[in-house]
Amino acid sequence: MASEHVKGFIIDLDGTVYTGQQDIDGAIHGLRKLQQHGIPFLFLSNRGNYSRAMCKDKLAAMGIEVAAEQIVLSSTVTARYLRDHYPQDAIWTLGDPGLSEELRSHGLIIADKPEQAKWLVITLHESLTYEDLNKAFRAVRAGAQIIATNEDRMFPTEAGDCIDVAGMIGAIVYSTGVEVTKVMGKPLQIMADTALSILGLPAAECMVVGDSLASDVLLGKLHGMSTALVLTGSATRDDVERSEVRPDLVVESLAALIDQHLSYKR
Amino acid sequence: MASEHVKGFIIDLDGTVYTGQQDIDGAIHGLRKLQQHGIPFLFLSNRGNYSRAMCKDKLAAMGIEVAAEQIVLSSTVTARYLRDHYPQDAIWTLGDPGLSEELRSHGLIIADKPEQAKWLVITLHESLTYEDLNKAFRAVRAGAQIIATNEDRMFPTEAGDCIDVAGMIGAIVYSTGVEVTKVMGKPLQIMADTALSILGLPAAECMVVGDSLASDVLLGKLHGMSTALVLTGSATRDDVERSEVRPDLVVESLAALIDQHLSYKR
Repeated sequence: MASEHVKGFIIDLDGTVYTGQQDIDGAIHGLRKLQQHGIPFLFLSNRGNYSRAMCKDKLAAMGIEVAAEQIVLSSTVTARYLRDHYPQDAIWTLGDPGLSEELRSHGLIIADKPEQAKWLVITLHESLTYEDLNKAFRAVRAGAQIIATNEDRMFPTEAGDCIDVAGMIGAIVYSTGVEVTKVMGKPLQIMADTALSILGLPAAECMVVGDSLASDVLLGKLHGMSTALVLTGSATRDDVERSEVRPDLVVESLAALIDQHLSYKR
Repeated sequence: MASEHVKGFIIDLDGTVYTGQQDIDGAIHGLRKLQQHGIPFLFLSNRGNYSRAMCKDKLAAMGIEVAAEQIVLSSTVTARYLRDHYPQDAIWTLGDPGLSEELRSHGLIIADKPEQAKWLVITLHESLTYEDLNKAFRAVRAGAQIIATNEDRMFPTEAGDCIDVAGMIGAIVYSTGVEVTKVMGKPLQIMADTALSILGLPAAECMVVGDSLASDVLLGKLHGMSTALVLTGSATRDDVERSEVRPDLVVESLAALIDQHLSYKR
């Protein structure tokens, strides 16, 4: 099986297009080739502490211009969910500023005080303080429901493995005794549905590309898309052998996948 | 029932002797009267982010000199446990500096790097950063077992309710997927046993005095001591009515209890 039938790509960001502030060899060049061939794609990421605007700027600095609508982060999906179901509800956040920026860009209201919020949105908070935790705690104690952009446990960095959103969720759930009402993030259906509706293609014509078996490949498997695992991020060929989640394709990189795909088109 | 038969007191600190940096009216004066009458007492607190030395200094500043041995904090009990069972094991801490000071004062070794630790000790960390969380996370990922000084969820302050140790525990348990090996803190037996062995009295001759039904009064009920609830902290008379944990005495304050006790002695 290869990618001949694929009409559009849903592409992960961290570990697939870039690592930290560094673009992955050939990825940007490959994406520009997709643009030149008019092949639709969008980015789908579990990052909840960034806004689309921040992400668009980061990609532009690496050499590719995309529309904000081509970027779907877990913060974006959370914002769309709240806008569609609870547009009047004031929100408190526990997370980096990119999250509240994304919520505001969807017309949502950030509460002046934690006690006024109907929802606490939790995402990764790399500049976390005890006072940030206390404010989030008070929002929930005053009745706010908890929604999390995703529940990833960790992510690798050059300095070592780092705590992801699960750490922030655990701090609030354990101290309040209140469980999370809703979780977003790959591989959940709401992420697939949002990506497909923006891309405007049926699942069967899309391929999910990413470096994670548990989020990217599983998302495709669960929701009827074909899947390609890239080896530029967290997973290795050994991981694939050991995993019950088997991608349709395993490729060295996003650049290699795009080259291979375009060669079928010729 | 009153306190005539009581030979010694086990007395809580926060909400009973002081609130924050302020001593509670008459408490210090009452404690000095116990000293003058040669009635044995010790302090037993769920505080894990203080050392006995810090606590001794705080009490001295309020006007009472006690021996460090008369102060038993959850950090103290954790340190004694590790010293008695795992004296060679290097330790990492997630908590304010008072915890590592208390561990060191028991001859225990703080690891140079999180990955070298056999134990992660968790307590309240009011100056917490994301990097502190990551180091604790890495200790557990490298194999350290988790021990918590206590698992209280919250404590009241003038600025509002604040997250207690449970928040720090939740952050690490959720992100690592590793459960806590051992928890200290009232009302657990190890706290009662430690206090009684230091005080050198049988449980039946001791009274636990504190402001918490769930930790102080329950400790006494579970371990054969009589109990007095003071109303200078978190609990009210209404709380007592609603609770299944009923203290033997409910008194306005520690000072009132001591006056009443000494009046029987005359």
